[in-house]
Amino acid sequence: MRTRAAVALEAGKPLQVMEVNLDGPKAGEVLVEIKATGLCHTDEFTRSGADPEGIFPTILGHEGAGVVLECGPGVTSLKPGDHVIPLYTPECRECEYCLHPKTNLCQSIRETQGRGVMPDGTSRFSMLDGTPIYHYMGCSTFANHTVMPEIALAKVREDAPFDKICYIGCGVTTGIGAVINTAKVEIGSRAIVFGLGGIGLNVIQGLRMAGADQIVGVDLNPAKAEMARRFGMTDFVNPSEVEGDLVPHLVRLTKGGADYTFDATGNVGVMRTALEAAHKGWGESIIIGVAPAGAEISTRPFQLVTGRSWRGTAFGGARGRTDVPKIVDWYMDRKIEIDPMITHVLTLDQINDGFDLMHKGESIRAVVVY
Amino acid sequence: MRTRAAVALEAGKPLQVMEVNLDGPKAGEVLVEIKATGLCHTDEFTRSGADPEGIFPTILGHEGAGVVLECGPGVTSLKPGDHVIPLYTPECRECEYCLHPKTNLCQSIRETQGRGVMPDGTSRFSMLDGTPIYHYMGCSTFANHTVMPEIALAKVREDAPFDKICYIGCGVTTGIGAVINTAKVEIGSRAIVFGLGGIGLNVIQGLRMAGADQIVGVDLNPAKAEMARRFGMTDFVNPSEVEGDLVPHLVRLTKGGADYTFDATGNVGVMRTALEAAHKGWGESIIIGVAPAGAEISTRPFQLVTGRSWRGTAFGGARGRTDVPKIVDWYMDRKIEIDPMITHVLTLDQINDGFDLMHKGESIRAVVVY
Repeated sequence: MRTRAAVALEAGKPLQVMEVNLDGPKAGEVLVEIKATGLCHTDEFTRSGADPEGIFPTILGHEGAGVVLECGPGVTSLKPGDHVIPLYTPECRECEYCLHPKTNLCQSIRETQGRGVMPDGTSRFSMLDGTPIYHYMGCSTFANHTVMPEIALAKVREDAPFDKICYIGCGVTTGIGAVINTAKVEIGSRAIVFGLGGIGLNVIQGLRMAGADQIVGVDLNPAKAEMARRFGMTDFVNPSEVEGDLVPHLVRLTKGGADYTFDATGNVGVMRTALEAAHKGWGESIIIGVAPAGAEISTRPFQLVTGRSWRGTAFGGARGRTDVPKIVDWYMDRKIEIDPMITHVLTLDQINDGFDLMHKGESIRAVVVY
Repeated sequence: MRTRAAVALEAGKPLQVMEVNLDGPKAGEVLVEIKATGLCHTDEFTRSGADPEGIFPTILGHEGAGVVLECGPGVTSLKPGDHVIPLYTPECRECEYCLHPKTNLCQSIRETQGRGVMPDGTSRFSMLDGTPIYHYMGCSTFANHTVMPEIALAKVREDAPFDKICYIGCGVTTGIGAVINTAKVEIGSRAIVFGLGGIGLNVIQGLRMAGADQIVGVDLNPAKAEMARRFGMTDFVNPSEVEGDLVPHLVRLTKGGADYTFDATGNVGVMRTALEAAHKGWGESIIIGVAPAGAEISTRPFQLVTGRSWRGTAFGGARGRTDVPKIVDWYMDRKIEIDPMITHVLTLDQINDGFDLMHKGESIRAVVVY
């Protein structure tokens, strides 16, 4: 079949919206009509050429929602008409990782996913001249139709709006999951969130859900404070307005350091500040942001020997097929909010405008609706 | 009273054995006759002048065992004749840290301890000319008699030999505790221990107690392997004999990386190797060793984002008054071994020979018996 997609032909260039060929689903695969997709910094990381593992031409996008159109042979858990959210971290429920209680990093299709192909080693997408186009993070939601492995699709309730729940495919789950699955924040905790963008806001609402007593937000842009307060932030710190070092300021503000700190900036200097602002004895610092290629974190080992822990999270520690449907329920039950974070709705033809908004810091989330 | 002590008059000089004055215990303090003390790398770290917080003159030593001679006013948990192990990490059971479930770092007397004085701000030790001598880590076990706060003494059974259980005052508890209290190693785990000295061997026997399936020891000195095997090491790796990078070699050996890795070297490069040899998704790396002043650890944040945790431990996460008596029981019940690690027994006059043995790598533990 043919479908419309925003294709990244080469690194650093705007996406090009065009017709592409899409082969039908093979064994264990599912054809999905994408109804909406968010634009995430990770898409931009690869589009820009900063991602050393980026391969082109490719169809980016990994934060979508849609409807199953057709199932390949052997697919048992989905049927045409099911509503689904694509998962860049699949959940096969059979590999060593899925069967380990401490991780969500299913490895069953990791290798082919990294190479931009389906598990059989080939791509379903191609240009009209037959040139193969690579898949991206196993999702490629910047196409109106895509093919995904069955294990990489979370089935969700049918009354949930695609243009909102697409965000659960990455940002919402990453932020809330970092709090709930990775940090396992306890009621009454004090926390600091560095970076009040699309991930940071979701960390904040995760902390509110978890019953944190103090939720400090840190951002250089004071315009971010209002929205963050709406999601539960109790204190705002603008590092440019702090006299002296930021760490002792944050330690004083949290009466000895935070029980949990979260980096949602991707800046390795901020990651160090986040660790060192965690409480002596028991503070945990969770890295969420993706750092530039080659960047390294560092600190004195004394910070760890005196009881701080340095950890990270990917997709919020969520097991997608199991946890994503629950988060959709939380949204529908108004336990969490998404609507105010969807600041811009675009057509596929306007997708490059969405990246411009991201660069200008004007959007929290821009969503393309097909 | 007067007692004999090995005094560190200034940084970098050999200890000088001499008579010193010792004032009696004030309120909340206890006079202890030290019967035996181990020589630990931390004593040497301060003696050598490498410790930026070292203050002189001081009486070093923090790994002792002895008998209570006299209790100051208000002491309720100890009486003359009780056998005790001094604790450089006290346990007041009242401070914010003691009451927090995730740490053992009692802070109640931290500030005065760091300044080399008792909680009232003064020292009990002085030269015969009246010059004050500082306490060290709140213990000063290189004196035949010392004064300690009640909260820094663990009461232990009376049939346990002083010249063995003194080692529980630091090395044994630090190594075993890192496994049991900090890492909480599960039965069947794979682990790697970097550095097969006095701490590393105790990590190994802790892993054996915890039921680890694979215990890899890493050391540049092949002479360390025999003793490590005796304590439970299953595989020995000499980095100088590994072709190519050490991390992939260790990852292969542990079938994907270790569930737990422990640094007992204090070398920040080794700490990085330890983290990166931990299993993707769930591996935890625990820093035990004390690094040189100013040294920093570093790694790519990707290592944490893909599920590894970087942590540290002090005194093995043990709450001394509660946990040290149990470890003494384990020794008496032959659940753990100490005797083969006490390789040299010295008199106080021979104490500088003990540091020479440490430098030559000829001793695991040298113990001074008074």
